[in-house]
Amino acid sequence: MGTDIKTAAEMLRCADNIVILTHQNPDGDTLGCAFALYYTLKAKGKKVRVENEREIPSKYSFLYKDYVKEEFEPQFVVAVDIASTSLFGKGLEHYENKVDLCIDHHKSNTLYAKNTLVDERVAAACELVFDVIMELDGDISDKALLCIYTGVSTDCGCFKFSNTTAKAHAIASLSLDRNIDIYNVNRLMFENKSRAQLDVEKYALQTLKFYYNGRCAVITVTQDILKEAGAEECDLDALPAMTRQIQGVEVGVVIKERNEGEFKVSLRTGKSPDASAICAVYGGGGHAGAAGCTLYGDVNEIREKIVETIGNFI
Amino acid sequence: MGTDIKTAAEMLRCADNIVILTHQNPDGDTLGCAFALYYTLKAKGKKVRVENEREIPSKYSFLYKDYVKEEFEPQFVVAVDIASTSLFGKGLEHYENKVDLCIDHHKSNTLYAKNTLVDERVAAACELVFDVIMELDGDISDKALLCIYTGVSTDCGCFKFSNTTAKAHAIASLSLDRNIDIYNVNRLMFENKSRAQLDVEKYALQTLKFYYNGRCAVITVTQDILKEAGAEECDLDALPAMTRQIQGVEVGVVIKERNEGEFKVSLRTGKSPDASAICAVYGGGGHAGAAGCTLYGDVNEIREKIVETIGNFI
Repeated sequence: MGTDIKTAAEMLRCADNIVILTHQNPDGDTLGCAFALYYTLKAKGKKVRVENEREIPSKYSFLYKDYVKEEFEPQFVVAVDIASTSLFGKGLEHYENKVDLCIDHHKSNTLYAKNTLVDERVAAACELVFDVIMELDGDISDKALLCIYTGVSTDCGCFKFSNTTAKAHAIASLSLDRNIDIYNVNRLMFENKSRAQLDVEKYALQTLKFYYNGRCAVITVTQDILKEAGAEECDLDALPAMTRQIQGVEVGVVIKERNEGEFKVSLRTGKSPDASAICAVYGGGGHAGAAGCTLYGDVNEIREKIVETIGNFI
Repeated sequence: MGTDIKTAAEMLRCADNIVILTHQNPDGDTLGCAFALYYTLKAKGKKVRVENEREIPSKYSFLYKDYVKEEFEPQFVVAVDIASTSLFGKGLEHYENKVDLCIDHHKSNTLYAKNTLVDERVAAACELVFDVIMELDGDISDKALLCIYTGVSTDCGCFKFSNTTAKAHAIASLSLDRNIDIYNVNRLMFENKSRAQLDVEKYALQTLKFYYNGRCAVITVTQDILKEAGAEECDLDALPAMTRQIQGVEVGVVIKERNEGEFKVSLRTGKSPDASAICAVYGGGGHAGAAGCTLYGDVNEIREKIVETIGNFI
């Protein structure tokens, strides 16, 4: 059932023993939502726990440095920035039919929760969580605001992507008024390139191919390249945006081998075409400007296939 | 003499036959200031002309597409985002002692104008011009706001640099409320990498050297490298920021050969050290986070020299 800011806030006001679920391969938005809610609800004396299928990457430790994990029997389950239960990941499947409230901004939300607050027009789910917190308290703590800023900035590419909203900037403006250290957040999120990342990018750029008169650019990264550069999968995170930055490119694609024969395809587009529509052809999803899907087989065949599909959209 | 927003607005209200000067190698801030003022003052029926030592690069044509150059005898001269008359460039020297009003945000402003509105705390001179326009009209046109947004976004690295202010975000929020196409601006300013740029960056990365346990990273680009990549000097603009993005780097340096034996040194720093203080040692200047200077001689000697100087600051 669809719900609104006011009702969502009321539900949280009444709830206790709250579990907050974040999506697999967590990013600044899902974690920003979760810890902003955590700090806000903890301050009300409630029991709250944030869950993820794995340990949360240390890159995000600035968000959870005041987090204390508590054990308790959940009475209210919130999912943040999670479009579908398939994104819960391993170990959290038992929550599948138990989500009381989902706060999300994906058009593709499958409405799996008992109550869903979804608005695809916002840049980040954190914008919605911000509204819920303001409805709840009429104010937001510095700790929670840092989390909200992180989610907003992450999901709109530090205010550069076409999904950036007036509200995203207004939240950032408030964060600076409050002396939140946004510089440190952005440095950690966007400007902290490891030497391994530099190296793998150098290798990856050599695989760059152009299609459709330079309107589509494709990079392919196999396990061999990763090994040669001594890099991990997350060292490739900047590559999709990088391909789209090239002059004339409307669709930037990175095809990376996750396991032998299993390829994660990441698309970035400008105002058009709709990246999520292209990825939907292969059972994937995401946003209009950033989406992904998984394909299996030979790397060259996969590249040909995805390039052909893109040709139907541009 | 120092002046304030209100007085600066009053001066412009009374003035006519206005020339607006922009600095050499113009950027989004100096041009954003100039054309925001141009559109605002033109709408009041005044004669206004924007001047630069050379033709303004076509990259910025979205700012001046409604600009019509008029010839008239100047009665009032405004300099925007220009710290010193040495930045007027060739052909504009005759304005040296004739600037009535300077609007600027450089700490190093030499106070060459009859009246100077300077505030180093703002991210961009455009923030000050925005205030002046609001004081003048109580509102700002969409055309002028696009120019202001461009200057603000350019000078704070699309809201990523440590100089970003609450006001910069507030102006951006207003721009989105007004449906200004900020995505297009940011794509042109930040995400429009030519193939030549890609190539020269690949070459340049091979010259990357680290000093002081990785706290300082230096790239050197000689004329040979530029020729090999078929690139121009402006194709290197992204490199200084790139060096500073590397994990652990506090000072990123790019040394590029402008003419034989003449090297432009560009520094980017985080919260510390002060880049402009380092460059001042060699007669250069700029901001705390981004500054430059010019050195002459052999590339390896210059690198050693600048690295040694940096050692005194970190």
